[in-house]
Amino acid sequence: MTEKSVRERAQTLAEALPYLHKYHGGSVTVKYGGSVMLDAELQAVMLRDLVLLSYVGISAILVHGGGPEISEMMRRLGREPQVVEGLRVTDAETMRIAQMVLVGRINQDIVSAINQQGGRAVGLSGKDAGLLVASKKEGPVDLGLVGEVEEVRPEILRTLVAAGYIPVVAPIAVGRKGETFNVNADHAAGRVAASVKAAKLIVLSDVPGILRDRRDESTLVSALTAAQAQALLDEGVIEQGMIPKVQGCLDAVRLGVERCHLIDGRVPHAILIELLTDAGIGTMITA
Amino acid sequence: MTEKSVRERAQTLAEALPYLHKYHGGSVTVKYGGSVMLDAELQAVMLRDLVLLSYVGISAILVHGGGPEISEMMRRLGREPQVVEGLRVTDAETMRIAQMVLVGRINQDIVSAINQQGGRAVGLSGKDAGLLVASKKEGPVDLGLVGEVEEVRPEILRTLVAAGYIPVVAPIAVGRKGETFNVNADHAAGRVAASVKAAKLIVLSDVPGILRDRRDESTLVSALTAAQAQALLDEGVIEQGMIPKVQGCLDAVRLGVERCHLIDGRVPHAILIELLTDAGIGTMITA
Amino acid sequence: MTEKSVRERAQTLAEALPYLHKYHGGSVTVKYGGSVMLDAELQAVMLRDLVLLSYVGISAILVHGGGPEISEMMRRLGREPQVVEGLRVTDAETMRIAQMVLVGRINQDIVSAINQQGGRAVGLSGKDAGLLVASKKEGPVDLGLVGEVEEVRPEILRTLVAAGYIPVVAPIAVGRKGETFNVNADHAAGRVAASVKAAKLIVLSDVPGILRDRRDESTLVSALTAAQAQALLDEGVIEQGMIPKVQGCLDAVRLGVERCHLIDGRVPHAILIELLTDAGIGTMITA
Amino acid sequence: MTEKSVRERAQTLAEALPYLHKYHGGSVTVKYGGSVMLDAELQAVMLRDLVLLSYVGISAILVHGGGPEISEMMRRLGREPQVVEGLRVTDAETMRIAQMVLVGRINQDIVSAINQQGGRAVGLSGKDAGLLVASKKEGPVDLGLVGEVEEVRPEILRTLVAAGYIPVVAPIAVGRKGETFNVNADHAAGRVAASVKAAKLIVLSDVPGILRDRRDESTLVSALTAAQAQALLDEGVIEQGMIPKVQGCLDAVRLGVERCHLIDGRVPHAILIELLTDAGIGTMITA
Amino acid sequence: MTEKSVRERAQTLAEALPYLHKYHGGSVTVKYGGSVMLDAELQAVMLRDLVLLSYVGISAILVHGGGPEISEMMRRLGREPQVVEGLRVTDAETMRIAQMVLVGRINQDIVSAINQQGGRAVGLSGKDAGLLVASKKEGPVDLGLVGEVEEVRPEILRTLVAAGYIPVVAPIAVGRKGETFNVNADHAAGRVAASVKAAKLIVLSDVPGILRDRRDESTLVSALTAAQAQALLDEGVIEQGMIPKVQGCLDAVRLGVERCHLIDGRVPHAILIELLTDAGIGTMITA
Amino acid sequence: MTEKSVRERAQTLAEALPYLHKYHGGSVTVKYGGSVMLDAELQAVMLRDLVLLSYVGISAILVHGGGPEISEMMRRLGREPQVVEGLRVTDAETMRIAQMVLVGRINQDIVSAINQQGGRAVGLSGKDAGLLVASKKEGPVDLGLVGEVEEVRPEILRTLVAAGYIPVVAPIAVGRKGETFNVNADHAAGRVAASVKAAKLIVLSDVPGILRDRRDESTLVSALTAAQAQALLDEGVIEQGMIPKVQGCLDAVRLGVERCHLIDGRVPHAILIELLTDAGIGTMITA
Repeated sequence: MTEKSVRERAQTLAEALPYLHKYHGGSVTVKYGGSVMLDAELQAVMLRDLVLLSYVGISAILVHGGGPEISEMMRRLGREPQVVEGLRVTDAETMRIAQMVLVGRINQDIVSAINQQGGRAVGLSGKDAGLLVASKKEGPVDLGLVGEVEEVRPEILRTLVAAGYIPVVAPIAVGRKGETFNVNADHAAGRVAASVKAAKLIVLSDVPGILRDRRDESTLVSALTAAQAQALLDEGVIEQGMIPKVQGCLDAVRLGVERCHLIDGRVPHAILIELLTDAGIGTMITA
Repeated sequence: MTEKSVRERAQTLAEALPYLHKYHGGSVTVKYGGSVMLDAELQAVMLRDLVLLSYVGISAILVHGGGPEISEMMRRLGREPQVVEGLRVTDAETMRIAQMVLVGRINQDIVSAINQQGGRAVGLSGKDAGLLVASKKEGPVDLGLVGEVEEVRPEILRTLVAAGYIPVVAPIAVGRKGETFNVNADHAAGRVAASVKAAKLIVLSDVPGILRDRRDESTLVSALTAAQAQALLDEGVIEQGMIPKVQGCLDAVRLGVERCHLIDGRVPHAILIELLTDAGIGTMITA
Repeated sequence: MTEKSVRERAQTLAEALPYLHKYHGGSVTVKYGGSVMLDAELQAVMLRDLVLLSYVGISAILVHGGGPEISEMMRRLGREPQVVEGLRVTDAETMRIAQMVLVGRINQDIVSAINQQGGRAVGLSGKDAGLLVASKKEGPVDLGLVGEVEEVRPEILRTLVAAGYIPVVAPIAVGRKGETFNVNADHAAGRVAASVKAAKLIVLSDVPGILRDRRDESTLVSALTAAQAQALLDEGVIEQGMIPKVQGCLDAVRLGVERCHLIDGRVPHAILIELLTDAGIGTMITA
Repeated sequence: MTEKSVRERAQTLAEALPYLHKYHGGSVTVKYGGSVMLDAELQAVMLRDLVLLSYVGISAILVHGGGPEISEMMRRLGREPQVVEGLRVTDAETMRIAQMVLVGRINQDIVSAINQQGGRAVGLSGKDAGLLVASKKEGPVDLGLVGEVEEVRPEILRTLVAAGYIPVVAPIAVGRKGETFNVNADHAAGRVAASVKAAKLIVLSDVPGILRDRRDESTLVSALTAAQAQALLDEGVIEQGMIPKVQGCLDAVRLGVERCHLIDGRVPHAILIELLTDAGIGTMITA
Repeated sequence: MTEKSVRERAQTLAEALPYLHKYHGGSVTVKYGGSVMLDAELQAVMLRDLVLLSYVGISAILVHGGGPEISEMMRRLGREPQVVEGLRVTDAETMRIAQMVLVGRINQDIVSAINQQGGRAVGLSGKDAGLLVASKKEGPVDLGLVGEVEEVRPEILRTLVAAGYIPVVAPIAVGRKGETFNVNADHAAGRVAASVKAAKLIVLSDVPGILRDRRDESTLVSALTAAQAQALLDEGVIEQGMIPKVQGCLDAVRLGVERCHLIDGRVPHAILIELLTDAGIGTMITA
Repeated sequence: MTEKSVRERAQTLAEALPYLHKYHGGSVTVKYGGSVMLDAELQAVMLRDLVLLSYVGISAILVHGGGPEISEMMRRLGREPQVVEGLRVTDAETMRIAQMVLVGRINQDIVSAINQQGGRAVGLSGKDAGLLVASKKEGPVDLGLVGEVEEVRPEILRTLVAAGYIPVVAPIAVGRKGETFNVNADHAAGRVAASVKAAKLIVLSDVPGILRDRRDESTLVSALTAAQAQALLDEGVIEQGMIPKVQGCLDAVRLGVERCHLIDGRVPHAILIELLTDAGIGTMITA
C-alpha cells in the first residue's frame, strides 16, 4: 500500500464512520429490477453489500419487479401479454401466471442469491401476513386485476428485520375480500419504505438518475424537493419507466421517508457509495 | 339445548381443558396435501381450526405437497412428467416448474386461505432463510434434482411462531452449493416437526389410518410403536402413498417427536378431535 | 365414539376455542354458597372446573358465604341467632364466632377441596392485606357489626392470581379503625369482581336464575340490562335471597364488570357451559 | 439532645448500618406465642418493629401458637382438653375446634394488629397452597391428629414476601390424603425458617434464653453449637416448654439456617436489639 | 449493656428505620472542605459513614474544595496567590496549578480514603464527561478563569451511583469552547445536588450552622425558608465563608432540592445524626 | 469524484464492513504517550478516530504515560529526577508530584481533547475504584514507590464502557495497604487490555514497529508469535523504549488478548487502518 493510498483509505473510513453511526439500527428499502437484475455479477456485488450492511446494523428490505419473465411465461403458456400505458392488462389467468413467476421464481432466485452471499433472506409476497393490501386501480381502461396499494401491514417486516433476516418482497397484493392484485413494484417500494420508517428509499435503475435531457448524462439533477420533482413530472421532463419510480419516491417522501435516491444500479457498490460517503450519486428527492 | 346435550358438551369441555393446558405454548406440525386439499370446504374447516388453536396458544406449522398441479403445469408447458417408483424424475426445467407451482401457487393459496380465516400465515420454501438443506438422493436410478433433507434450520420457524404467525412450508430445499432440490413433503414434515420439537406430527390423508387390510376399514391399527410400524413397512402391509407418510413419522419419532398421527383428513375437525379429546382417531406412532 | 358424537364434540370444541382465547389471561369471580355448598360431589365438580380453567389461563377468585354454620356454632355456644330483614344482628361475640366459622372452618374447607382437585388455593378474609374495607351499615335497626364494603384493595388478589393461586375470600371486612365487620357475601363478590376487572361475575345459587314467576321455571329471564334488573327489584318480582345476589351484580356492572350471571349451581359444569359455549344458561345482567 | 446522647445514638446507628446491609433482602422467621402474645402493648411494639424492618428490606415471617385459647373454646363447647407429655390429644372434633381458633381467631388477630401498625400481613394456615405437609406423629400413645411436618412448600411464602407482605402462619398442616393435622408451632417455625433460607430464626419466649439453672437468670448461656444444645437436651438441663423450642432450632440449623436465637419477648424491641446491634441477647444456637 | 442502654439503643434504631426507608434508593450530596478536611480521624469517620449509608441504599456524592493547598503549591512554584472578595484571581498558570492540586492531589486523597474504608469511590472533575459546564464569571473586577456553573450533565453521576460507586467531584468546570474554569465548590455542590434530585444537600463546615450572632452558638437558627435565608444574606447577618454555602443551598432549593443542611462537620457522625434521627442538627434551609 | 476514486472508496468500504461487524461490541485498549502526544494535530485526529469508533460500537480504553512533564514539574519544584535503567527512582514527594501531573494535568488534557472531538471521556487513575493494584517492584536497586501491577479490577471500566464513556487511565496504582505506586504505562496497558478481554491492544509509538535493524525501516517485522518476540528481547534486538512496550504486549497475549499491535502513531488514522483494512501496519504479536 502506498502512503497516498493509505491516506485515502483512512480518509474514506473516517468519513464513513459517522454515517455508519447514523444509520445503525435503521433500515433502507431498496427497489431493484429490470436490467440491473440481469447482470449476475453486478447483482451479486449489490446483494453482498446489503449483507455486509446488515452485519453492521443497517437492515435492508428489498422490493423487486419482474416484467420480462412474466411476459415470457405467458407466451410459453400461449397467451399474448397486453400492456396499456405501461400497465399490464391482468385477467385471472394472467394474475396466476404473474404470481407464479414473481413469487415462485424471481423472488426465490433473489433469496437464494442473498443466502449464497452469507445473508439470511426470506421471501414474501404481499399476501404473506397480509403485508400489502390493495384495491382495484380505477381508470379509463379496465386493467383487470391491477391494484393500488392502500395499506401496508409492516409487522412481518419488523419481525423479520428484528431477527436479522433480509425480507425480499414480490409486488403481489391482497384485496379486502381476499382477491389477488398485481401492483407496481416502484409504488410498492415507496409504501413499504414509509411503513417501516426507512432511513432511505433507494431505487436502482439503469440510468444515472433524473436527467433534464435524457440523452445527456451531464444534465443529471443531483437533488430535488418533492415539489420540484412533481413539477418535472408535470412538465413531462420525467418520462417512461422513470415515472413510477419518481412517483414511488414522492409517495415515500409524503409519508415521512426523509430521503429517496434514484441511483445507477450499474455502478458497482452504488449503495455503499450512496450511504457511506459524502459524495452522493444519482438524484436525491427530499421533502 | 336439552339437558343431555348440556351434559355432553360440558363433559367434552372438561375433557378438553387438560389437553389445552398440556399443549399450551407448544406446536403441532401438520402435513397436508393430495385429495384433502381439493375439497375447499373441508380445507376451510381445517385451516380455521388451526387458527383457533393458535388463539389458545397452540401453534401450527403446515407442510404441504402438490403433485398433481406440477404435472399439469408441466404438460401445459409441453413436458411429460416422468415418475420412477413414486418419485418424480426432476431435470433443471422440471425443478423450475415445480418450484414455481409449489411456492408461487399452492403455498400462496394456502396462505391466503388461512388469512381469510382470520389467521396470519407466512409462506416459506426451504430456500427461505436456508430452512431445508438437502443433498441429492442417491439410488439405482438417477432422479436428477430429487433431494433428501439433511438438515433443518428452524430459526425462521421459531421467529415466526413466536410472533404469532403460522408458517406454511413448501417442499423445496437448497443444496450445500445453492442448488435447488425437490423433496418429499411427508419426509420434510417429519424433519420439520423434529426441528421445532413439535408436541405432535399430524399427517392428514384420505384414508382412516394404517389398515391391516387396505380394503377393510375395520382393520385400522390405532396405535403402533416405531418398531411395529417398521415391521409393517418391511412386511409390505403398508403400501404406496402411505409409505413415505409412515417413514416421515418414523423419522420424527427417531428425532424425538413423541407422538405422530396418521389421521383421516376427510373427517371435519379431525385435528381438534385428535388433540383435545380422549378419543384418538386414526393411527398413532410412538417411540 | 359414533360419527354423530364425534361431530358434536368437534363442534363443541370449535365453539369453545374463541371463548378460551377471549378469556385467556382474564379472571372470573365466582360467588358460591348456601345449598350448593352442601352437595359434596357437585362442589367437587365445580371446583375441579375452576382448577381446569386456571390451567388454561382463566383465573378464578371465589367468594363464599356461610350462614347456617354460623348459626349452628352460635347455638352450640349458647347464643340464639337473631336475623332482621335477612341480616344477622351481630354483637361483638357473634362477630367473633362468625369470623371463626367463616375463616377457620368454611374457608379452610374450600381451600382444602380445591387443593385436593390439583389446584393451589389460598384462603383470605377481608382482613388479610386489608382486602375488604367496610363501614357500619346504617339503617332503621342497629344491626351491630354488620358492615358495607366501601373499598376493595385488590393488590393481594392480583399477587396471588399472577402467581397461579386461586384466592378464596371469606366475607369478613375491616373498618377504618381496625374493627371487624360482617359483610354480605353477594355484595362482597360484586365489589371484588369489579376491583380486579373480572371478565365475569358468576353467582351460583339453587335456582335457574331470575324467574318472572318464582314457581314456574319456564319464566326464566335469560338476559337483562341493569336498568331492567333494577326495575324488577323495585317491582318486587325479585324476592328474598335473590335480592342481594342481584344487588351484587348491579354493583359489579355499575363498577365496570361487563357481564354478571346468575346461574344454577346444581347443574354440573354450569360454569364451563356458561363460559365456553354459545348457549348461556341462567340470567345474564349487563350494563 | 445532650452531646453524650448524640454520640451514643450516632454510635448505635453506625453499628446498625452494616447489619442492615447484611440482612437487606433477607428474611427472619419469628416464632411467637404464649404469654408474650397476651401483653397487647408488648405485642404492638414487636409487630411495629417487624413492619419497620420490612420497610428497610428485611422481611419477616411470623409463626404463632395458641394453646390456651383452644382449650378455652373446647371447654365452652363442652369438651375436656387432654394433654399427654405436652401434646394435645386431638380427635376430629378437637382438630376442627383447634383449626377454627388458630386460623379463624388468633391468626386473624395478629394479621389485624400488624395491619394496624402500617404493615400488610396475610394470614396462612398450612393448608393454604399446601404450605405445611404433615404425617401422623407416631409414638407410644395414639395422639390422634397430631402431626409432624414432613415437607414445607415455601412458594406461597416467597410470593407474598416478594410482594411485600408479612405472612402469618398458623400451625395447622395438611396430610398426603388431605387430612388436617395439628402441629407443634416451634417445630413448624424451624421448618419454615429452613424452607425460605431465613437469615435467622428468632424464637420469642418469656424467659431470657437457655439457663443452666432455671431459677437463676445469671446462668444464661449466650451461645451454643447444635451439638452442645443437643447435649443439654439429653442431660435434661433444658426442660418443659423450652424443649420444642430448642428442637425447632436444631431442626432449622440442621437444614441450613445459620443462626437461631431464643430471646426474651418481654424485652421491648428485643428483635431490633438482636438483629442490629453487636450485643446479642438471649441464647444463640449455631451449627 | 445496661437495661437503660438497651432501651435507648432500641429506641434509636426504631426511630432510624423509617428514615432509612424514606431515603432508600435516594442520594445525598455532601459538600466538604476547609478545616474539616484537615482532621484525618474526623474525615475517616465521616467517609466511613458515607460508605455505610451506601450499603443500605443511600448513595452519596461528595463535592470538595481545596483553597489552602492550591495557594501552597502556587507559592512553591513561585507565584503569589491573589484573592479579590474571597475569589481567587485565576490566570492560565494558576488554573493549571489549581487543577493539578484539586484533581491530582486532593480528589485522589479523598478517593483513597473512601476506598480504605471499604467503599468504591471514583474521582471526577467537571471536565470528566463534561459534568460541569461553566461560563466566565462577570463582575467589576476581571478574575480571569473564575467561572460560574451554567449546566450540570449528571449522566456520569447516575451511571456511577447506579453501579454502586461514590463519585467525588473536584470544583473544576469546562467552558463551551473547552476552556478550564475554577468554580466555587459550594455553588457546584448546590447545582450537583439539584441535577441528581438529591434527597438532601448537606454542607459540612466548622461552625454549628447559621448563627444570628457569630460569636454566640446559642443563637443558632435551626430552620429557615429560602426567603428567610435570603433576607439574612441581604441584611449581612450571614458573613464571609458562610455566604457561598448559603447561596449554594438557595440554588439547590430553587432547583428542587427539598432540604439543605448546614451542619457542623466537627461533630462525629454528624451526617448520620442529621439523616437518621428526629433530632436535626445545624441549620436546615427549605423552600 | 472520478470513477476510479469511486471504485477505490467503495472497495475500501466493502473491505471495512466485515471488520466493523467483527469488532462491534468489542473494545480496543490503546497505549499512547511520548512524542506522539506532543503533536496536537496528530493527537486530535487519533482521538477523533476513537470517538468515531465508539459511535459504531467499538469502544476504546486509553492508557497514557507522561515522563517528560513529571520531570519538568520536579525541576520546577527544585528536585532532580533520577532514573535507573529506565525507571524513575520515586520517593514520596516524587510520587506526589508524579500523581499530580499525571492525574491532574495530562489525564485531564486528554479527557478534554476527547470531549472536544464529540466523545465522552472520563479520566481514571488506578486509585479510582481500586482499578490498578500494585506491589513494590523488587530488584537490585531500591526504586522506592515504583510498583508492578498485580491485579486489575475492571468493573469500573466495564461500567463506563457500557454507558458509552471512553475511560482514560493514568499509570498510578494503589497498594494493598493504600500506598500509591508509580507503574509503567506500557505494562499497565497490557494488563488493562487483558482485564477487559480487549479484541486488540494497540501500542502507539514513534517508530514503525519492531525493526530487525533499528536504523533501517525496511527491516520491519510485520508479525511475530509471542515466543519469537521473547527471543528478540532475549537477543537484545529489541532495545530501549521498545522493551516495555513488547513486554506489555507479551503480558497481554499471555493473559488472553489475541492480537497486540505496535504501530506508528505518526501515521494519521493509524488505528483505523490497523482495525478496518486488510493491510496491517506495524508489528503484530500473537499467541
